[in-house]
Amino acid sequence: MASTDRKATRAQIKTHNRRLILRTIYDHSEISRAEIARITHLTRPTVSSIVAELIAETLVAETGQTASRGGKPAILLRVVPDSYFVIGLDLADSEFRGCLVNLRGEIRHRTVLPVTSAHGDEALALVFRLVEMLIAASDSPILGIGIGAPGLIDAEQGIVRRAVNLNWKNLPLRQLLAEKYHLPTYIANDSQAATLAEYTFGHHPGVSNLVVVKIGVGVSSGIIINGQLFHGDGSGAGEIGHVRVEENGVQCRCGNYGCLETVVSSPALLRQIKNLPQTAFPTLTDNLTLEEIVAAADMPAVQNIIRKMGDYLGQVLAAMVGTLNIHQFVIGGTVAQLGDALLQPTRRAMDEHAPPFLIGDTKLAISKLGQDIVVLGASALVLANELGLV
Amino acid sequence: MASTDRKATRAQIKTHNRRLILRTIYDHSEISRAEIARITHLTRPTVSSIVAELIAETLVAETGQTASRGGKPAILLRVVPDSYFVIGLDLADSEFRGCLVNLRGEIRHRTVLPVTSAHGDEALALVFRLVEMLIAASDSPILGIGIGAPGLIDAEQGIVRRAVNLNWKNLPLRQLLAEKYHLPTYIANDSQAATLAEYTFGHHPGVSNLVVVKIGVGVSSGIIINGQLFHGDGSGAGEIGHVRVEENGVQCRCGNYGCLETVVSSPALLRQIKNLPQTAFPTLTDNLTLEEIVAAADMPAVQNIIRKMGDYLGQVLAAMVGTLNIHQFVIGGTVAQLGDALLQPTRRAMDEHAPPFLIGDTKLAISKLGQDIVVLGASALVLANELGLV
Repeated sequence: MASTDRKATRAQIKTHNRRLILRTIYDHSEISRAEIARITHLTRPTVSSIVAELIAETLVAETGQTASRGGKPAILLRVVPDSYFVIGLDLADSEFRGCLVNLRGEIRHRTVLPVTSAHGDEALALVFRLVEMLIAASDSPILGIGIGAPGLIDAEQGIVRRAVNLNWKNLPLRQLLAEKYHLPTYIANDSQAATLAEYTFGHHPGVSNLVVVKIGVGVSSGIIINGQLFHGDGSGAGEIGHVRVEENGVQCRCGNYGCLETVVSSPALLRQIKNLPQTAFPTLTDNLTLEEIVAAADMPAVQNIIRKMGDYLGQVLAAMVGTLNIHQFVIGGTVAQLGDALLQPTRRAMDEHAPPFLIGDTKLAISKLGQDIVVLGASALVLANELGLV
Repeated sequence: MASTDRKATRAQIKTHNRRLILRTIYDHSEISRAEIARITHLTRPTVSSIVAELIAETLVAETGQTASRGGKPAILLRVVPDSYFVIGLDLADSEFRGCLVNLRGEIRHRTVLPVTSAHGDEALALVFRLVEMLIAASDSPILGIGIGAPGLIDAEQGIVRRAVNLNWKNLPLRQLLAEKYHLPTYIANDSQAATLAEYTFGHHPGVSNLVVVKIGVGVSSGIIINGQLFHGDGSGAGEIGHVRVEENGVQCRCGNYGCLETVVSSPALLRQIKNLPQTAFPTLTDNLTLEEIVAAADMPAVQNIIRKMGDYLGQVLAAMVGTLNIHQFVIGGTVAQLGDALLQPTRRAMDEHAPPFLIGDTKLAISKLGQDIVVLGASALVLANELGLV
């Protein structure tokens, strides 16, 4: 028993040192073994032995020599960004999006499959198809699969507790994929994945608390507190889409009436536009897309609808400011394509409804990560858990 | 330099071991030195030497012997609860409340001073007077001063950034008290102190996330996340009292209109009752107190007002459920004396406005800690920081 314990500890130290060294190389564009030893406080032999492993696995390569400064020139090391790919999946919107993402979070290949009305097993088969298409497209070994899925996700157990749109309930998605493809698999709620992406790749130096609101088919948010995603007691932290904002509102897919999602989401936007008289939106067609709405965002009737969305969204964000006093709020997801047209009325309502002594320091921005935000966060889950990167 | 480092580390280890041993004795009603060594994994000589110190400081006493089970009977140790007192202050309401609190969080002496219209330096002089009265009343040495103060508090710097009611702005309250009385001093926002009290003394086994809403002259909340108070980026987390809930509401002391505080607070309650026609509340006097209102809480006109308060409060708490998905909500403060009359309409509004798939597991209760809740939390700050207790 004692001996097993000791072995476990030795293996843990090895893993820790390996991660520390890989991370140190990752954080520098080029670095020598001596410099790694200096930064990590590990011995030269430990560094050399682990670096040899990383080179054998092709994660790291020797890249040249430092300019001689009197002494013997040192060989430099760098991470090989495309030596492995991660499969990142976004299952949260009206299409399933899958990407091959490299070790630097750069997207190397993108596949999008329309979901249309796929539900239950049919939707699951579509996930399998997407993964298989990405595996086939990859010319590097796959490190693992990261998933951003809609609904209530038990990230620890890897289970989709409840995803209304896909009609999934207690689906052990992580286990299903891990066993089928023999790949380490991680899953998070789509807005939590988006939040992780923004935190990791969104350039927020010095920030340790962050709120990301993702608006697409649904609305939900992810909250980083002290550098960690906060999940709440029941994996439901950030589920602001089902807070009631309209007393006599329309029915929501959750069963309640007047939820934020019934006024602020892509279906709510399309519904409201379709209800406009033909004269207000002459180019209205049955297959109206979000892109067409974005292009028409300066038409007065469309502006009115977007302004109302921003007003409701801003009120809910104001309550979040009072609750969390987090200074950095970011909006992502398909509806974020509305840009300033949505940002401005949201900001105005936030200013009006939040505690005046807190709102001044609160920033609200549209994410620069675009429509790959969930995929990037899902990939970050794999890079962080498998390699200790990002 | 290296030698100083080593000394610091040795002192840190000593402090750590001392806290560990004191905490171990504190957590058991009686315990032997051998059992302490077994639990802490410290050597017997280390335990004996630190216990000797604790006995010399009267924090710990020998109390008897274990029943002999064959071997030599061991002497038992216990913490002496009244060997030291903590001064706990609650500066957040219409009166300043100060208590002598023992090491077990039991209140041994209580002094209450009416604040009436004391502002600025006058209010500060009242704090000094309260501390001096408590020092005079104590027959045990004082361990330190803990303060729960209203408004925006920078707990780390010990500064009251902004307390509108007392007209304090950037007041270095911790430093002023620490230097005047040569006592370690700690300060927190009143609702954060209340939250700490509820978390420490409120019997919530297994809970690591908790929201406490304190309703008195103002409304604000404290949030425990992963066992720690969350302060937000600007010390303002939990400031829900200044979230707007009424579009055309009355002006709040923060300058805005229709804040939660303008409908849910003791002044708001008194104002609304005073606006009632004489027939609706026949016992109405100019000096109406909260206690008289509590006694009249079953009168229909009063019920209506309290129901409206609960409705607004429940809506804000519903948004907190969506944001945090924390399962345990507790209401404290003077207005919590309304009990079920407030709890029931609040619960109803929470149920109606929160995400339906999260609200079922969310509990809402009135704190059992009563009107000493802030004092207890302020004392817990001292016990935790000075002795590693609670």
